[in-house]
Amino acid sequence: MTESTRAIVLPGDVSVVNVGLSLFADAVRDQAAPVEEVDWRIPADGQLDLVDALEQLEGPRAAGIDQANAEAVRRLDRSVPLLVDVAPAGTLIPDLSGRTLLHCGPAIEWAEVCDPLRRSMRAATVAEGWAGTIEQADLILADGSVRLQPAYRYDTVMPMASAIGPSAPVFAVDNRDGGTRAFAPINQGPGETAWFGRETPAAIARLEFLRDIGGPMLRDILDSSGPIDIFALAAQGVQIGDDVHMRTQGTTNLLIRNLLPQIAALPDPGRLELAQYLSGNHLFFLNLAMAAAKSAAMWAEQVEGSSIVTMMCRNGTSYAIKLAGSRDVFISAAPPVEEAMYYPDYGPETSAPDIGDSAILELVGLGGAAAAGSPAVAGFLPGGMADAVSMTERMASICVAESTRFKLPTWNNRGTPVGVDVRRVVELDTTPKVTTGILHASSGAGQIGAGVATAPVESFRAALRSLVSDASSG
Amino acid sequence: MTESTRAIVLPGDVSVVNVGLSLFADAVRDQAAPVEEVDWRIPADGQLDLVDALEQLEGPRAAGIDQANAEAVRRLDRSVPLLVDVAPAGTLIPDLSGRTLLHCGPAIEWAEVCDPLRRSMRAATVAEGWAGTIEQADLILADGSVRLQPAYRYDTVMPMASAIGPSAPVFAVDNRDGGTRAFAPINQGPGETAWFGRETPAAIARLEFLRDIGGPMLRDILDSSGPIDIFALAAQGVQIGDDVHMRTQGTTNLLIRNLLPQIAALPDPGRLELAQYLSGNHLFFLNLAMAAAKSAAMWAEQVEGSSIVTMMCRNGTSYAIKLAGSRDVFISAAPPVEEAMYYPDYGPETSAPDIGDSAILELVGLGGAAAAGSPAVAGFLPGGMADAVSMTERMASICVAESTRFKLPTWNNRGTPVGVDVRRVVELDTTPKVTTGILHASSGAGQIGAGVATAPVESFRAALRSLVSDASSG
Repeated sequence: MTESTRAIVLPGDVSVVNVGLSLFADAVRDQAAPVEEVDWRIPADGQLDLVDALEQLEGPRAAGIDQANAEAVRRLDRSVPLLVDVAPAGTLIPDLSGRTLLHCGPAIEWAEVCDPLRRSMRAATVAEGWAGTIEQADLILADGSVRLQPAYRYDTVMPMASAIGPSAPVFAVDNRDGGTRAFAPINQGPGETAWFGRETPAAIARLEFLRDIGGPMLRDILDSSGPIDIFALAAQGVQIGDDVHMRTQGTTNLLIRNLLPQIAALPDPGRLELAQYLSGNHLFFLNLAMAAAKSAAMWAEQVEGSSIVTMMCRNGTSYAIKLAGSRDVFISAAPPVEEAMYYPDYGPETSAPDIGDSAILELVGLGGAAAAGSPAVAGFLPGGMADAVSMTERMASICVAESTRFKLPTWNNRGTPVGVDVRRVVELDTTPKVTTGILHASSGAGQIGAGVATAPVESFRAALRSLVSDASSG
Repeated sequence: MTESTRAIVLPGDVSVVNVGLSLFADAVRDQAAPVEEVDWRIPADGQLDLVDALEQLEGPRAAGIDQANAEAVRRLDRSVPLLVDVAPAGTLIPDLSGRTLLHCGPAIEWAEVCDPLRRSMRAATVAEGWAGTIEQADLILADGSVRLQPAYRYDTVMPMASAIGPSAPVFAVDNRDGGTRAFAPINQGPGETAWFGRETPAAIARLEFLRDIGGPMLRDILDSSGPIDIFALAAQGVQIGDDVHMRTQGTTNLLIRNLLPQIAALPDPGRLELAQYLSGNHLFFLNLAMAAAKSAAMWAEQVEGSSIVTMMCRNGTSYAIKLAGSRDVFISAAPPVEEAMYYPDYGPETSAPDIGDSAILELVGLGGAAAAGSPAVAGFLPGGMADAVSMTERMASICVAESTRFKLPTWNNRGTPVGVDVRRVVELDTTPKVTTGILHASSGAGQIGAGVATAPVESFRAALRSLVSDASSG
């Protein structure tokens, strides 16, 4: 064969790097050739005003934001929130008085309140003694003679469809380094309870039990035990499969064993009732973790110019987020809980939208951020532990740091992602995933399942736009 | 280039399958060529009498053994052991009376007893009231006026360096399907306790507390709660990182939360002391799991002709194993605990050999078999979770089944290996790995670390030889 007649030969082996649409990669892979995919997408879903906003926050301004973010994340990560008190909300929470109900999520008018939260509000109204029956409660809620206030304005966090009046006992959690104090009601427990959207006599009786027995007894325990380091317990919980949002059982059990001497020393009328309540409530730790997260977030919110998200809350109708260093709240519609498992006879068509203030846990490295360590969360996902790891990795893609205290043995002992940066959220069009319970939309059946909700991107986009205009005007 | 001058060209790419010595594979791998290793070793470490014994148990005889093994494993896997009673050993355990101490591991003379077990025996002798001081106890133990009996002969299992007399309270655990009942003492807790080889006044006081308060109070609790399904709890423990041997904390916490109403209802003299003891003892569930495992193993031992291992126990001097369907016990020297982490200032040179009856847990799918699910066990291994998975996989290589109840979320939700077949152990020269605590060899300092011990192959080889001769004579 001479030089001139040599045929052009295509290479026998091809290796391909594919950037963008995976359709091309699939075609190469179908021909048994190796292909490396780069997960490239159009930034901010291709919306030009958002791309412009992101560009404005890059360059010379990025350094300032990064610096503010580092301090905000340090506060989220290093706070040491201590449970220091339990007492009626009206005596502990500043400026809470009169016929006022605190509720989960952003501010809302009665007419817009979803069914399970209405039921919870009616139950609380009866428990407060403002109405003798659920029907009377409905009337005075509808005519505006009970004032509705979003809990976040009172430094309070409330899980699921919680609503409380001034007589309900709340935990006070102090973050002494930051000088912040947050509040949360006592968890009402599983089953026939108002925070799950039930308004039965048993649900009302549980509210009365917490007011008359649970609160005072827990106060006795705390007087005897001294302050309790909530995140130290949560860090152990993360080691034993709790995401400390959807699942708090391991941490609850640990706390109860720790407090057993104080429980055993309680006086007789009440000791047995408290023991029965605690024994039947694997969710007890949830509200403590939430108050701790809130106290940390409140400290982070004192950092100016940060793009770190410090609040996500929902009332079953709307969804609100906040950024550190901004007083503004950015609202969008509450999404459905899409990845879910339901109790028999229930499904998406009977589910209320995502609800409660508990999504604050995802912002300090718990819940969805800790999914990779939680077989219980994996149980709700079609791909099991692999999907749970993906959930944590998704969170890592939009976070600026890893927790120094919440470590996942099943994720190479890495710290959970912490510090959601709204710039990354918008650029990647990827919002936090939140582990949560699901309530019935209309029947008052209470909890009907659990699953994972995806935070709506619209409020993050609004927050990003606001960050640009704040900085421009500042 | 013409045909005749064409050079012989070695292939540019080589793929190698290597069987046997990994040296060859390493050489190929060093040249960046792919290599698949087959983990092939000479059977039974090349010992011809063992190869001959294995051959005798294959062929026509294998089917009979396999059938017996299937039934033995069914019994190990499907037993439902229930905690039904707590009372002094002398009233519950048949034929236990007089100045007799039950001890962990195989039978042993006082002269051969290791230091930590001697201390434990002296503490028990004082607690029984047979001697006023540790020195007097030493004299009557040395002169033979206290009889030493291995606990296994009394259907009893004792963790670490436990020794108990007839006044010590024991749990009775019934496996009703099998008609078997096993016993274990109440766990003495961490710290200054006799089962860790301590003989201080505090260690003796703990034995007296269990006799006078702990036992009776636990009996009250059980009278009120009804029988407790031990493996149902253990199955939940395995989901939350307990291997249910080295780590039983999750299961202990769960049991305590379950029993909180009964604990709170106890009478006043004693309730507080019991609560303090339980609150301070994360190891409480260990002895219950052991008694449950023993009751299952006793049922499996009623199957004739099986090669499944049903007992592994050690007294710090010698190591014994049993097979289902054999009355014989096969003894070798107790090994050191080789993969270990020590408390500060301690190390292998001051460690007692492997000790206690708790290795029975490994035979029902717990302990080392469940390592892949336990971050706590992984913490003792240089390679972390990967090493823990290897430990479970090692166990799977010598087991004939997977547990239908102990499932590992971090091992694709597979059941833990169960049913150690002595044929596989000898053929692969691979014995079970056992998670365990480590005691000081001589100073009375008690626990100085924890780690993983490898069962000695000699007793398994002796058991295999016996299986051949039993079958030949049968």
